[in-house]
This record gives sequence, C-alpha cells and structure tokens, in this order.
Amino acid sequence: MSTKLYTYKKEFTLESGRKINELTIAYTSIGKLNEAKNNVIWITHALTANANPEEWWNGLVGKGKFYNPEKHFIICVNVLGSCYGSTGPLSINSDTGNTYHHDFPTITIRDIVKSLDLLRLHLMIDKINTLIGGSLGGQQAVEWAIQNPSVFENLFLIATNAQHSAWGRAFNESQRMAIKSDRTWYSYSDDAGLRGLKAARSIALLSYRNYETYNSTQLDNDELTDGFSAASYQNYQGEKLTNRFNAFSYWHLSKAMDSHNVGRGRESVANALSLIIAKTLIIAVSSDLLFPVAESKVLAEGISNSQLSVINSLYGHDGFLIETEQLKKEFEQFYAQHKNNIKKLKLAV
Amino acid sequence: MSTKLYTYKKEFTLESGRKINELTIAYTSIGKLNEAKNNVIWITHALTANANPEEWWNGLVGKGKFYNPEKHFIICVNVLGSCYGSTGPLSINSDTGNTYHHDFPTITIRDIVKSLDLLRLHLMIDKINTLIGGSLGGQQAVEWAIQNPSVFENLFLIATNAQHSAWGRAFNESQRMAIKSDRTWYSYSDDAGLRGLKAARSIALLSYRNYETYNSTQLDNDELTDGFSAASYQNYQGEKLTNRFNAFSYWHLSKAMDSHNVGRGRESVANALSLIIAKTLIIAVSSDLLFPVAESKVLAEGISNSQLSVINSLYGHDGFLIETEQLKKEFEQFYAQHKNNIKKLKLAV
Repeated sequence: MSTKLYTYKKEFTLESGRKINELTIAYTSIGKLNEAKNNVIWITHALTANANPEEWWNGLVGKGKFYNPEKHFIICVNVLGSCYGSTGPLSINSDTGNTYHHDFPTITIRDIVKSLDLLRLHLMIDKINTLIGGSLGGQQAVEWAIQNPSVFENLFLIATNAQHSAWGRAFNESQRMAIKSDRTWYSYSDDAGLRGLKAARSIALLSYRNYETYNSTQLDNDELTDGFSAASYQNYQGEKLTNRFNAFSYWHLSKAMDSHNVGRGRESVANALSLIIAKTLIIAVSSDLLFPVAESKVLAEGISNSQLSVINSLYGHDGFLIETEQLKKEFEQFYAQHKNNIKKLKLAV
Repeated sequence: MSTKLYTYKKEFTLESGRKINELTIAYTSIGKLNEAKNNVIWITHALTANANPEEWWNGLVGKGKFYNPEKHFIICVNVLGSCYGSTGPLSINSDTGNTYHHDFPTITIRDIVKSLDLLRLHLMIDKINTLIGGSLGGQQAVEWAIQNPSVFENLFLIATNAQHSAWGRAFNESQRMAIKSDRTWYSYSDDAGLRGLKAARSIALLSYRNYETYNSTQLDNDELTDGFSAASYQNYQGEKLTNRFNAFSYWHLSKAMDSHNVGRGRESVANALSLIIAKTLIIAVSSDLLFPVAESKVLAEGISNSQLSVINSLYGHDGFLIETEQLKKEFEQFYAQHKNNIKKLKLAV
C-alpha cells in the first residue's frame, strides 16, 4: 500500500480566508472502480490516524475483509493538517520556503472536507457507495454529506456528532494547555512541544476510555503505594504518539475538531442535517464518554433516512476502532435491509 | 478565623520510612468543646482546599449554619504536603536549612491520617462526634476510622472511595505529566512548574465535572470556529489555581490520593472496612465520574453500620462542594434517625 499524492495547483482558500498554495492531498486507494461505478467506499480517518485503513481498521478493511479491494474501490485521505503526507504544519510554506510550524493557518472540518471533495473531483468519482467515518472521521463524513448530498448512497457515522460539545472542547483545550506548558513548543522546530504532546495524548486517552476500561485492564497488587500500572500505561501511550506525530498537527487537528458544527451558517444543526439524503447508519458506543450516545441521537433525529444502533464495548470511544466484529455485523445488516427494501419497492412497482 | 499551628517535636516517620523533623500541623477550630465532650465535628479537606471549611463549605459550616460554632467544636487540619500552613514541599527542611522543593518525601493518605491523630492527641480529644470528608477528605476519613475505630461516633464519607481507582490514578498521572512537560518544574524554586500546574488543574476539572455540566454552562453562539467559552473556562480555572497553590504540593497530594487503599497490609478492602464501628453515612453523587457511585457501594457493603444515599447533581464530583443543601438534609435525617433508634432502644430496655 503506497500513499499517492495529489497536488492542487490553484489557491486553496480556507474558511478563515487564509490561503494555502500548492495543497498536497495524500491518499491511498485499493481495488478498482467497477464498470457500474458503484463500488466506491470512502473512509475518513480520526485525529492521529493516517490514510491507510488497512493498518488502523484491519478488522474491516483489506483482502478478504468486509471492505475488500477485490470487490470495492476503497479510498482514504490523510486529513489536511496531519503529518502523513497531506499539507500540514511540517510542510514547506511555498510563500516563504520555510516550514510552516507556528505559521500554519487554523483549519476547520469544512476545510478538510473541501480537500476531500477536490480529490474526489480529481479522481472523477461522481458517486460514492458508502462514506464511512468514526470520531473526527465521522465529523468530516457528516459535513461532506451535507455539502454534497447527491454524491453519497450510504453514510455510516460512528461515535461522532453534529457539533463538537463544550465537554469535548474542554478536553481538547486541556491538551493544548499541556502542550503550551512545554516551553519548547514556542520554537520553530519539528520536535517542538513533544513532551507536552505526550501529556496531551495521555489526557485524550482518558476521554477515549472510561472507568471500567482502566479498572479492568490496569490492575495492581494491593501492597503498592506508588508505581501503579495505570500511570505507566499513560506514559507508554503518550510516548508512543510522540514517536509518530508532532505537536503542531495535533494542535491544529484538535482545533479543527472543536470547530465542528454543521449548523454554522445553516440556521441550525437540525436544518443542516435535513439536507442529507444518503441512507444513513449511525452507530454509537454505549460507554463512549467523549461522543456520548445522546450525540448520535441528535444525528438520528436530524437525518431523515437514518437509523441508530448502539453497540456495547468495554473500551468507550475507542470501541469504534476495536469493535470491528460488531461494526461488521451492523454494516452487513444495514446493506441487507436496504437491498430488501429495494426488492420490496420493485415488487410494489 | 485564624489558623493555629502545632509543631510535633519528635521525628515523624512516614509510611515510606523517611522521616520529617519538626512536623507542623496547621488547623483551625471554631466553637468550644462542651462539657459532655460530645460535640466535636472533625472535617477533613480535599486536594487543594485549606483548613478553613467556613470558606470552602460555607453552606454547611459557620455561624448559624448546620455545623455551628455556637453548638459544635469544629476542627479542620491542613493536610500534610499542602501549602496552607502544614509542613509541605515549600517548607524549610530542618535537616538542610533549605526549602524541600524536589526533596520532599512521598506521602500517603496514611501519613496524613497519622498527622491528624497526632493533633487529636495533642488537643486531648478522645471522642469525635462526627468525622466528615469528601473526595481526598473522605479518603482520610475512612482510613482514620479504620485505624482508630473507637474514636468516632459518626462517619460521613462523601464522594469518596476505599481504594483509589486505576482510572483516578490515570487522571492524576496525566496531570503530573502536564507538570513534567513544563521544564521549569525541574528547578528548585517555589514557582517551578506553574504552567504545568495550570494544565493539570484544567485536566482535573474534567474529572470533577462531566458532559452535562459543560454543555449546560459553557454555551456559545453557532457561528464561532474558535475561541469557545469552554476553552476560556479551562484557562481561567487553571490560572486561578496557580495563583494560590504550587506544583510541588499538587504533585505530592495527587500521589497521596493514588496511594489510597485501605486494604494495604490488611488482607483486603472488605476486611479493612469491617473494622469501622462508627455509624456511617455514605453519600455518592449520581453524576460523579471520578468517584462513581459503585465506589460508594463498596464502602456501604464493607462498613457494617452504614447507609448509602445517592444525591443528584449537575456538577459531577464537584457536587460534594456545591450541593450543600442536599448534604444538609442527608445529615439531618441521619442524625434524627439515629436519635430515634436510641430512643427506641431505651424504650425497649
């Protein structure tokens, strides 16, 4: 699986009015467009993931998997602002010849979606069979389905929302405060703020999991007064992210997540959601603290042709990455049901 | 209300084996011991509070309040390791003549309790009518009631636990990681790590509240893409703490909280709790994420003469500080009920 690059040669204007010259969009595609042109599966990724869902969603995507390159044409784009190939804070600013670092512009979910649609047009894809995303990926998916309703046949929104919550924004701000508390953050170097990023990831993890997850997985013997496994785990996970990510991308993508509100400029969230025409499957994780079930209900109430499933998981928000067997069943049922509906419709005619 | 100081002139040996010379215990007392010596209300405080409950629990404590110095002899001790008068990391180490800073020893809840009991003996108090504490205060209270069962007539444990959870420890570790990401933390100065402390407080706040609290109190108009009120709130609260606390005390008290496990060296949590003989009222806050109701149930199951009440609050764990009206009602009912029980007993005799 190699990442392909598409460079958009015109000016790319952001929601803020700032412009990026020579936007690079990194993406992967596996499989081929079939003759009927109805086998495109477009996957949008979460905060720190990359354009390769075979890697981070391998229970669902890959040869012999539910989304199978032998049947499907599967596309995933590395989000604008990230560090896995698409233009981001560690890219060269063509205006100055220097790395952006602190000069990278603020981006929103709508800016990310704009870049997705540029690639779609470049690849000459008119119809997407299924657009599917969880968390920040779901935020992109719902926004895109509002902007271009007729492109999407099916829309799968997993552990996501129509508007980022005050709670989610407070979590993200705490993470940025941890980054800011690291004085190296203020330098113009690729590794600025890495220790802050380590703490930020540790904070994020708390929102991705919950009381039960920790108490089930981080056990200690009763005689300890210090050196608990939960503490080691937070450090280990924090460290792991600093080896593959950077504080600038993290900062900007958390800001993009905060910006998410499909109601902005569209009267209301409900009004925005009513524009979606795709057959929509909304999946919430019962134990999700960060994107609680109530937020999926808002999506289900607002999207006319939709249904909501709540899956159980010990893993809270992370369930959307881990519970691939349950997701697969939900997807299967959804496709089967709509196939039957079409048959029924045909019979009725 | 002035804070009194008691200096313990002998060596004070910590659970770790390390020693503190000339331990200072700061405390406040209001009211007087009555002739029957049965009016002592001992309040243990939470992580960043001080020895003055009239200030941080003024719905419950003070002239004309439920705990009233005209009736009660009310005592509260600033916890060992804090910065409001008792020996802590910003105190002078009498061995070296320098401020402890990074050389302050690790302390546990049991060390704090040991200091409480020293003061009790110094004040020649044999019987405590009610020992009452929430959060870290409750951790002290339950530990003390296990160590000295016969001292306590009534025990009120609010939003607390018998053993700190892996989840709570992960939250605390994330806060210490934020402090460590601030390079000034490594200096030997009173204001080391303050920016990290700011982030740490912001993280803690997430665990003190919840999704509903933020969504009800941090509202924005729909047109924003940045500058959300939840973010300002986190910064404001973080800043506020740095103006009245220090990163060393915060570090050590969060470690003390992590150490809390009444089962340590006592076979099991259940075995330890079974040693308590005080009439015990356990109060949980329904929306508490940090000390969930399940932890209060463990206390209620383990303490033989106990009852559990769950109060509702929008404010999550912070409910224990905010919902003083509800707490007052619970306390009133509890005292009344046990008075009736005594009457019934007398009638039966």
